[in-house]
Amino acid sequence: MSAAPSSPMPAAGPLAGLRVLEIGHFVAAPFCTRLLADLGADVVKVEPLGGDPVRQWGEQRDGHSPWWSMHARNKRCIALDLKNPRAVALVLDLVKDMDALVENFRPGQLDRFGLSEAALHAARPDLAIARISGFGQDGPYRDRASFGVIGEAMGGLRHLTNHPPEETDLPPSRVGISIGDSIAGLYGAFGLLATLWQRDRAGGTKQAYTLDVALTEAMLSMMEGTLPEYGVFGTIRQPQGSRIQTAAPTNAYPTRDGQWLLVAANSDPLFRRLARVLGRPELADDPRFAGNPARLANVGELDALIAAWTRAHDAAEADAILQAADIPSTLCFTAADIAADPQYRARGMVREVEDPLLGPVLQAGIVPHVPEDPGAVRWAGPSIGAHTDEVLAQAGLSPETIAELRAEGTIR
Amino acid sequence: MSAAPSSPMPAAGPLAGLRVLEIGHFVAAPFCTRLLADLGADVVKVEPLGGDPVRQWGEQRDGHSPWWSMHARNKRCIALDLKNPRAVALVLDLVKDMDALVENFRPGQLDRFGLSEAALHAARPDLAIARISGFGQDGPYRDRASFGVIGEAMGGLRHLTNHPPEETDLPPSRVGISIGDSIAGLYGAFGLLATLWQRDRAGGTKQAYTLDVALTEAMLSMMEGTLPEYGVFGTIRQPQGSRIQTAAPTNAYPTRDGQWLLVAANSDPLFRRLARVLGRPELADDPRFAGNPARLANVGELDALIAAWTRAHDAAEADAILQAADIPSTLCFTAADIAADPQYRARGMVREVEDPLLGPVLQAGIVPHVPEDPGAVRWAGPSIGAHTDEVLAQAGLSPETIAELRAEGTIR
Repeated sequence: MSAAPSSPMPAAGPLAGLRVLEIGHFVAAPFCTRLLADLGADVVKVEPLGGDPVRQWGEQRDGHSPWWSMHARNKRCIALDLKNPRAVALVLDLVKDMDALVENFRPGQLDRFGLSEAALHAARPDLAIARISGFGQDGPYRDRASFGVIGEAMGGLRHLTNHPPEETDLPPSRVGISIGDSIAGLYGAFGLLATLWQRDRAGGTKQAYTLDVALTEAMLSMMEGTLPEYGVFGTIRQPQGSRIQTAAPTNAYPTRDGQWLLVAANSDPLFRRLARVLGRPELADDPRFAGNPARLANVGELDALIAAWTRAHDAAEADAILQAADIPSTLCFTAADIAADPQYRARGMVREVEDPLLGPVLQAGIVPHVPEDPGAVRWAGPSIGAHTDEVLAQAGLSPETIAELRAEGTIR
Repeated sequence: MSAAPSSPMPAAGPLAGLRVLEIGHFVAAPFCTRLLADLGADVVKVEPLGGDPVRQWGEQRDGHSPWWSMHARNKRCIALDLKNPRAVALVLDLVKDMDALVENFRPGQLDRFGLSEAALHAARPDLAIARISGFGQDGPYRDRASFGVIGEAMGGLRHLTNHPPEETDLPPSRVGISIGDSIAGLYGAFGLLATLWQRDRAGGTKQAYTLDVALTEAMLSMMEGTLPEYGVFGTIRQPQGSRIQTAAPTNAYPTRDGQWLLVAANSDPLFRRLARVLGRPELADDPRFAGNPARLANVGELDALIAAWTRAHDAAEADAILQAADIPSTLCFTAADIAADPQYRARGMVREVEDPLLGPVLQAGIVPHVPEDPGAVRWAGPSIGAHTDEVLAQAGLSPETIAELRAEGTIR
């Protein structure tokens, strides 16, 4: 059964006209191409005959996961056995019409398939190639196996996602999502467009670029002052738990109904308003809490006062009181909170997408929002090989050749 | 004293030739323009006369923070008082030569300065405008104050960055860096280049685009299957601590010297190798641990076995043993570990940048790596107004006019 729509909407969004081949799997490269396809690029994803493993990641029905429904949306999925030279020849044929290739195999793997840069550029001299890997295409760690959690830890994130050691014996928490892979994919999309802008603009270079995104480096790039502060002062930043090192009060506070309420009242005017909400207006002028340095010096005492107030209220009630006082606060949103949120709904950032295999699926909208040409979710993540025939026919293969390739097990 | 170099290196990188005006502060917009400037864009940053607060964030010397040294590198910094109409006129004059504007004020604030979209487009009809805000430029939350931690929590990240409630009474941890702001900035850079590619390419639209990036939505966009799984199955994903929900073993394990060692051995071949390292090769065929579903069902028992082994070794020793067995593992890197890492050094991802105010500063390299044209760190974050004279002279102002504007307090 095919999950490809019979009459897909035409491409829309600023990347309409961009043609991208993805030979990727798992998260990083497919996330990169999801972003490109969301903004209108025509993404053809090459999968092995058994499909990308994300099809079965998380909860699923009949081998089709809701994650996949969003992860592969707007892409045309073709299935080929790259161990077969006829499949490799097909890929090189497709590359002739592509602007860019995105891949996240281990360094050297595409070469072993017969898809070296020389072969790819012979087929398409100005093809931009975005490679995403754990450690990069060179250097002493090049050939190491890569996992997202390893890259996040080596990038410095994991050490900081923890409470101070005097407060807990538990290990540093994972962020809870594949954040390292997704950030690497986002850097890939950014870098690819930087090179394409230079290649394609009036007066541009018209040259091919090869992008080398490492998951570790994508994380390191986000670590703000951590490395510079070590270099200048020798300071090694340590985990701060749910607080912020440089401003107070900002923390997650327990509520009567067992939830965590975030409150960010770390400027003098905000703290003055918070003190009134707590019924303790004098705290704003208390020498322990007047000014951010004093509040930081006495943050334990301060947080205890705020927590005493939050514990006396249910989370929704406390949140409403703080919002009414114009103090930034929020619950820690779950998927259910996100689905019900009026702002997300008003901006189309929570939307129902019809999936032929799953029915309606709630998906995140298109980020970033481009009001003049916002793109669209044209279809949900397709089934394996849903677009094989369409894509190969566009490449000039006859129905007979396609049938033969399928019969011999080269395509699906 | 000026911290601008007297003879900066020429622009390099794929974005050479791109001209960007930043009217931003804090993290999101300046992070966006750091990425653009790293790849060669000419970024002119407009600051208030007192400078961007990040100049004093984290540790600092004489009002100059190492964070700023990296955050504002490669930018030309000019200082103007936007409450003065003469300064606003100057900005509109500068806009005439710009490709893009990046800003992260509260929605409506630029309009109040006299820098509405109409005014900006009157100065430069095809100016691309990237706006980054907490909740977006419309919708019921548009005017709410925004903080990174609030956006991260509403995007769904904070709820998942925690241990299961039965394991801890502590609140969900902050990631430890301004991840929401940085991700929003990265989405801004990606989206801006998408619109510029479409505007500037041969056959492109030549039209102006306005980008509307919300911090909450940038986070939500990264949340993989969380929202779709809720929509289809009603499942609300819950925090998993340091484990991964779908594969085992992957966890942080305690070592003899009190560190946390990450081990990711969640495939059958990896687990077989790990079992040999533990001196328990029979575990690979034990019905409790043979295959990922069995390992997940018995993950507590499995993690206890692994932790018993890690506790008998110092972290570096255990890490070396696992690496030798080709099992992905790593310490949770601190800034010191990052600075000493041979892979980062080999790829130029930890580099010394000469800062006139701080001396040599360790900074992250340029991500993503573009081998054909990798960009450069041309100079460290400049002092306030370091480029005011240069930029205004380029815009055609005479030394006398510049002196007059400075004397009256319009510029610094």
